[in-house]
Amino acid sequence: MECIGVYGLGRFGSFWAGELSRRFSVCAFSRDQGHAAPAGVRRVGEDELLAQPVVVLCVAISAMEEVLERVKGRLAPGRLVMDTCSVKSYPIGLMQRILPQSVSLLGTHPMFGPDSGGGGIGGLPIILCPARIPEPGLSTWRERFASLGLAVSVMSPDEHDRQAAFTQGVTHYIGRVLADFGVRRSAIGTRGFNALLEIVEQTCNDPWQLFLDLQRYNPHTREMRRMLAASLEKVMADIDRSLDIEGGRGYDKKLNGEGNG
Amino acid sequence: MECIGVYGLGRFGSFWAGELSRRFSVCAFSRDQGHAAPAGVRRVGEDELLAQPVVVLCVAISAMEEVLERVKGRLAPGRLVMDTCSVKSYPIGLMQRILPQSVSLLGTHPMFGPDSGGGGIGGLPIILCPARIPEPGLSTWRERFASLGLAVSVMSPDEHDRQAAFTQGVTHYIGRVLADFGVRRSAIGTRGFNALLEIVEQTCNDPWQLFLDLQRYNPHTREMRRMLAASLEKVMADIDRSLDIEGGRGYDKKLNGEGNG
Repeated sequence: MECIGVYGLGRFGSFWAGELSRRFSVCAFSRDQGHAAPAGVRRVGEDELLAQPVVVLCVAISAMEEVLERVKGRLAPGRLVMDTCSVKSYPIGLMQRILPQSVSLLGTHPMFGPDSGGGGIGGLPIILCPARIPEPGLSTWRERFASLGLAVSVMSPDEHDRQAAFTQGVTHYIGRVLADFGVRRSAIGTRGFNALLEIVEQTCNDPWQLFLDLQRYNPHTREMRRMLAASLEKVMADIDRSLDIEGGRGYDKKLNGEGNG
Repeated sequence: MECIGVYGLGRFGSFWAGELSRRFSVCAFSRDQGHAAPAGVRRVGEDELLAQPVVVLCVAISAMEEVLERVKGRLAPGRLVMDTCSVKSYPIGLMQRILPQSVSLLGTHPMFGPDSGGGGIGGLPIILCPARIPEPGLSTWRERFASLGLAVSVMSPDEHDRQAAFTQGVTHYIGRVLADFGVRRSAIGTRGFNALLEIVEQTCNDPWQLFLDLQRYNPHTREMRRMLAASLEKVMADIDRSLDIEGGRGYDKKLNGEGNG
């Protein structure tokens, strides 16, 4: 019986296998015996998994090269391999270099996980980066992902990485900073502060390795971090300058200062 | 006809007068002729406003001292004056020093405004800092604010300022940094990123003066800013160290890296 083969049953792989199994027949393999398949997903051996028509790699960015070297000789012609990494240029480059020409390639980035998608993945984004896939393969998968309720976008790997650095990348960065800072729920939390807490909840349950990989393997995150540090310094300097110029309290004597200060 | 007198019709005063008028008779005064009273609120002159049994000051923190000097001789004994500043030790100290002993004082901080409370203020927090108010005055106002659906907390001015610096203060600070950084809505925004956008929406429509006042007149925000900068540096250093130690790509060859990297 043919199925979508999910390779890797870590935090994300297990979640994604479960979601795919709502509409498709799914089997899964993990090199870690401790990782069970979720309900509705058949656990199989590595050879059986690699014999499936579609193999979905759910492994860490930093493990991609080794996994590709390990499986490259065991994929029959015509198979479709998808990665699910949170960066795209790097793993797609690896797949194009390492996997045989006879295998089709589709880069995917499901932009959710057990935290953001735990209550359902309807409306959440998935990005597709066609790497080596003939039509109608791309259209078929576009429709299949849409049938799960996902908002499907298609773009180049570099465009993905640029946009992801300035959306998901900055969010994870702020989340880790706030976790280190130590924000915690408060009886006097404003709506804005509760959004701050949500960022921590949405980012800090993921492995630290994923955070590092996001920062490391996306060529645009260095620029993002540089800009964020510059903005922090600018706001800090604006405050300091205001305090210096005005000096002490009662610095602004204008009568029409109305607001709840 | 007696009413709650709202002094100041800026962005917050106008909003708060409107909300109070849902249950109470409210009149309002503004030194700025351009500021109209919201529907349901009677606009009055300054003398008529100061003759009301309760005067709610909705002026910028930085304008408090001048306004108190201006009104101190025109409040009859037994009147209750509330401020609504987003910091509490500073304005309560001013009120205690400047206003006559015959006037009751209640510090309040409605922790919302037209952005967070535009869809209704039910469940949102208000802090009360009793400054010079005999019972049953405090109980009466506690119940009145609760009757608006607000979550009422009572604490000392310094406890308020400490908690506010590490909730509202850090939120406004992050909001301003993100606005300078330039986050904007994206088709591929994750749930966490959308929370990031909400922070900007919840903080950056307020006047820049309010932001500066929050940072300046709350004695605990300096410590908050120092801790936040230290956390940013720590996360940045953790990334740099990881990049230095591991060096280049494929830095982590361990086989069991599973996740959607």
